[in-house]
Amino acid sequence: MRAYQIPAGATSVDALQQVELPEPKPGPGQVKLRVRATSLNFRDQAVIRGKYFGGPVEKPQVPLSDGAGEVVAVGPDVTRFKVGDRAAGIFTPAWASGPFPGSYVALGAQGAPGVLAEYLVLSENAFVHIPPSLSFEEAATLPCAGVTAWNALTVGKQVKAGDIVLTLGTGGVSILALQLAQAAGARVVITSSSDEKLARAKALGASIGINYKSTPEWGKAVTEATGGHGADIVVETGGPGTLPQSMAALALNGAISLLGVLTEGTIAPMPLMIKSGTLRGLMVGSRAQFEDLNTAIEANKIKPVIDKVFPFEQALEAYKYQTAGQLFGKLVITV
Amino acid sequence: MRAYQIPAGATSVDALQQVELPEPKPGPGQVKLRVRATSLNFRDQAVIRGKYFGGPVEKPQVPLSDGAGEVVAVGPDVTRFKVGDRAAGIFTPAWASGPFPGSYVALGAQGAPGVLAEYLVLSENAFVHIPPSLSFEEAATLPCAGVTAWNALTVGKQVKAGDIVLTLGTGGVSILALQLAQAAGARVVITSSSDEKLARAKALGASIGINYKSTPEWGKAVTEATGGHGADIVVETGGPGTLPQSMAALALNGAISLLGVLTEGTIAPMPLMIKSGTLRGLMVGSRAQFEDLNTAIEANKIKPVIDKVFPFEQALEAYKYQTAGQLFGKLVITV
Amino acid sequence: MRAYQIPAGATSVDALQQVELPEPKPGPGQVKLRVRATSLNFRDQAVIRGKYFGGPVEKPQVPLSDGAGEVVAVGPDVTRFKVGDRAAGIFTPAWASGPFPGSYVALGAQGAPGVLAEYLVLSENAFVHIPPSLSFEEAATLPCAGVTAWNALTVGKQVKAGDIVLTLGTGGVSILALQLAQAAGARVVITSSSDEKLARAKALGASIGINYKSTPEWGKAVTEATGGHGADIVVETGGPGTLPQSMAALALNGAISLLGVLTEGTIAPMPLMIKSGTLRGLMVGSRAQFEDLNTAIEANKIKPVIDKVFPFEQALEAYKYQTAGQLFGKLVITV
Amino acid sequence: MRAYQIPAGATSVDALQQVELPEPKPGPGQVKLRVRATSLNFRDQAVIRGKYFGGPVEKPQVPLSDGAGEVVAVGPDVTRFKVGDRAAGIFTPAWASGPFPGSYVALGAQGAPGVLAEYLVLSENAFVHIPPSLSFEEAATLPCAGVTAWNALTVGKQVKAGDIVLTLGTGGVSILALQLAQAAGARVVITSSSDEKLARAKALGASIGINYKSTPEWGKAVTEATGGHGADIVVETGGPGTLPQSMAALALNGAISLLGVLTEGTIAPMPLMIKSGTLRGLMVGSRAQFEDLNTAIEANKIKPVIDKVFPFEQALEAYKYQTAGQLFGKLVITV
Repeated sequence: MRAYQIPAGATSVDALQQVELPEPKPGPGQVKLRVRATSLNFRDQAVIRGKYFGGPVEKPQVPLSDGAGEVVAVGPDVTRFKVGDRAAGIFTPAWASGPFPGSYVALGAQGAPGVLAEYLVLSENAFVHIPPSLSFEEAATLPCAGVTAWNALTVGKQVKAGDIVLTLGTGGVSILALQLAQAAGARVVITSSSDEKLARAKALGASIGINYKSTPEWGKAVTEATGGHGADIVVETGGPGTLPQSMAALALNGAISLLGVLTEGTIAPMPLMIKSGTLRGLMVGSRAQFEDLNTAIEANKIKPVIDKVFPFEQALEAYKYQTAGQLFGKLVITV
Repeated sequence: MRAYQIPAGATSVDALQQVELPEPKPGPGQVKLRVRATSLNFRDQAVIRGKYFGGPVEKPQVPLSDGAGEVVAVGPDVTRFKVGDRAAGIFTPAWASGPFPGSYVALGAQGAPGVLAEYLVLSENAFVHIPPSLSFEEAATLPCAGVTAWNALTVGKQVKAGDIVLTLGTGGVSILALQLAQAAGARVVITSSSDEKLARAKALGASIGINYKSTPEWGKAVTEATGGHGADIVVETGGPGTLPQSMAALALNGAISLLGVLTEGTIAPMPLMIKSGTLRGLMVGSRAQFEDLNTAIEANKIKPVIDKVFPFEQALEAYKYQTAGQLFGKLVITV
Repeated sequence: MRAYQIPAGATSVDALQQVELPEPKPGPGQVKLRVRATSLNFRDQAVIRGKYFGGPVEKPQVPLSDGAGEVVAVGPDVTRFKVGDRAAGIFTPAWASGPFPGSYVALGAQGAPGVLAEYLVLSENAFVHIPPSLSFEEAATLPCAGVTAWNALTVGKQVKAGDIVLTLGTGGVSILALQLAQAAGARVVITSSSDEKLARAKALGASIGINYKSTPEWGKAVTEATGGHGADIVVETGGPGTLPQSMAALALNGAISLLGVLTEGTIAPMPLMIKSGTLRGLMVGSRAQFEDLNTAIEANKIKPVIDKVFPFEQALEAYKYQTAGQLFGKLVITV
Repeated sequence: MRAYQIPAGATSVDALQQVELPEPKPGPGQVKLRVRATSLNFRDQAVIRGKYFGGPVEKPQVPLSDGAGEVVAVGPDVTRFKVGDRAAGIFTPAWASGPFPGSYVALGAQGAPGVLAEYLVLSENAFVHIPPSLSFEEAATLPCAGVTAWNALTVGKQVKAGDIVLTLGTGGVSILALQLAQAAGARVVITSSSDEKLARAKALGASIGINYKSTPEWGKAVTEATGGHGADIVVETGGPGTLPQSMAALALNGAISLLGVLTEGTIAPMPLMIKSGTLRGLMVGSRAQFEDLNTAIEANKIKPVIDKVFPFEQALEAYKYQTAGQLFGKLVITV
């Protein structure tokens, strides 16, 4: 089958190779997916650049965690899927339900299968059915970014109607968090360095847009723009660089969902005490959360926002486009 | 001031009397409200008919718990309100926040002030600011029915986007629960004996309407209409008469919020075990819940549905109309 | 291997047969346990009497869900266990973590493997490590009764130090709930028809014992004996027959954990409203809950109470002893 | 009445003055307490040194927030207390129940009454009944440190039997947290720079003691000493200086309760993500939490540990002793 691989030891996107690999076959309890669309996350940049957990990949690695397609074969004892079903793999194959089990193996890295290939074989427990109203391209945006946004909004302090939700920037997690929060009856404040993107975010349902370039003290601006209330939930995709302002924006008893796993730096935690606030780290989410996300998407007819779709042959261009800083939503590579 | 009173020992709505009472004055920490609109709840029928906790009222009682108006005077030490503020009283004056404190004294009964009068004086802690987008008539529908609907949807199992919420009938609690659940991204199933009312409920956002007259096994019908899933949350306003069908409608790990405080009867609890379900009793809610409700209403521009508005002089007609069985939403009496 | 079987269509304990069965072998991901001790639950009576879900067993069934032993072989790909580990099977093999997945297949019934045999082979995901401080006999009491008691005390309203916990009778669930609640800093009220058993329960840490024969209004007695507070959590093992008194005993905002899955009958739910109480049904629990239970047991050096140990040859006597009504704790059959 | 005062503008403990003040009288809804014992917190050092919120006190201030005594008079409309009751004031008079209301006014600072005086008059809502088994001296240790420890262990991630709880040092909050966690069935790890204090902590029920001087990487040591598990809950009384090690000690899905309100500094939040951990800021707690704490103390016969009792005349010596670094538990000043 056609696939892409990251060679062992790679430290740059230019190492990406298109290869021909043997077609995998489903064993007992396994499902074979014909991948139709995949999606890039910033984590995938880290993997190919050798900056992910543990450094450069040690063996040739099919990249990407997020893909959707149709089931073309099932192994013995499979009960949850049948040929013809539309499905997506889950980011952390070992995390079915409940709290994080400490399993750090995710698709597209550390020797786990990647989705940038024609076929993907995994245990049926590592797949979900995708929402009927979504295309393969749209569904491919969900396994990492979508589930992360859902986890950020529903675990710990669950978003409720009337809450103020703050999302940072217009990347895939932020935009889907905007859509989910708005569907849940919250008012959304979004930041960007671009007034044009803020306008697009408002068209998607954001109530307030703040340009963080022209308003460096945007934390205070969030509080003022919400009548002194601040953000009940912050979807913190920026990490230490943005956390001080996120804390300034936080409402009393508010919660910050911390997602920017790859960033380093330090913060002053004292505002959490003054506000009885919470800072919660998270790493994507479980299959049960993915299923709940899909239900919410279908019920509210949410359409994940795709910035650009690249054909399979232009995977490298997709990697490069992602870091050019113009993103609004997700990047998709079809297969 | 003009007011209505229920005479001591009353057991019928016809006992309602219009009277002239001394105008109350706010003491330290108290607020005086010029009541502009009030709203009827079924509990008010019980009070005037002598069937509320403890039987007929023992002393002349100004009726009704739900009213909205404007602040016309404040006593010393008041900090949360000023003259001119639009406000509503809370159902249980002693319940500010947290879980139910066991305080059964509520406005309009048991010797507590009632709102069917020109003025209402209470501690400032027993008032909330009303949503700017609502009229006095609309805001008057919230203290009992609105807070009950909010409590039913947000405590214990908090509604989330994609959930199935089942509301029973088209009374005030059910219709506001419909609106709140829909604003929270849930899909709403509603029951009624009238196809015409089901059509109106769908126009308000309900996804599925079931006529419980033509479909006596409506619990099973809810499950079927939701692809076998059932209701994640049931807003149970019917009591033992409807609980068996509500349990049949319940989803795995679902929750029934039990509100029909005045009904008696028995149920078989076994379905709760099979479904790992929860049955939770509740009595309206706290001031903090009322404030959250108001925030949710304002953020989502929800308009409480008023069936009919009666002028002050026709309060008795309002009581009688309420029990005629044609309700869709709330009844309001202006002052 | 030696084993017991319930013949197809059995409706009486006398149908129990000792048989010789082929020794099972572990496949990929599977673990083979040499069962050393098993334990009886009332559910096992229902299975052999043909009164469990779906009636009499349709195929010969090895009975019992609860057993402990040592790992004697592991199949390929097993990572959580090694030969020599001490382990127990979990009641619901498909329930690893999170809320109840709706899987009603449990060991010892409905065609699933039973533990009253020399060997048990299951997926490694269906086993837990047992607490080092427990014997096989003690550990064998936990999979159903122990996990049920843990679920009853920790999900929904989690027991906290100072709470009043009410347990009904002196069966296996009640006695372990007593021990767990006491270890969690709660005060335990226990009921029994025998003053002698109440004395034994107090020796185990119960604060208050109430003889439900001499005090038929024991719900009120619980409230009085706790200074008017009542029970924050009721471990309801009795079902509709005891629920009215359990509700009378319930504290404000209290929770009843409903476990008596096999009993029928009706209750009046109104007290739940007056008390803002919760009635939650549950069916044993997940592997994660079992692991937490084991951690709690080990940390607090809790010793499950065994009423009597029967040798393998006397399994039928164990079944008969269980229904003779003299239980205090659990019955064990060694293998 | 006899009292101590901090003069306006004070920046040193030596400014403390004994004075004679008019005896306060209870107004409507107020209670008058004859203070019998008070207790010092580190926050009180900040107040007298001019380092508390807002700098030096602006008006003469009676110091200390924590005191217990007996009710000697009640004003009109008081329902919760009667003369002769034993009671303690609450740290934040405006926080009765529910989440933190954003009220930063606490006893002994910012113009609020202080307890280092013969009498204390507050609204009855600002008092709790004290546990019958405690002396006034013991009860006086609870309003700030005790409620803080309770909040740290029960809100967000509530401690459960079998959990690992990490407490830092042997100050008042840490020692009471140790006692409460142990009563709740948790295993407690405690740190100190003194092996002698570690031995005393073990005598109180700590399972593991770690000398942070001889083991600078004590976070890793906690993980190792708990079989690789780490701390489910950290009672973080140290602030940024200890947080990096606390995070290293944190278990998967663990929670850090952040209490060291007065310390500044920065931390690297990334470990929270890797561990799906939570960092929660808190400021003492509500009256409802205080009442729950008292119930837990009484049920488990916990005796707060008092390092030293000073007579009223030696209040200054108490202030000085507190900062000498030899504390194990709380300091008390009798009145």
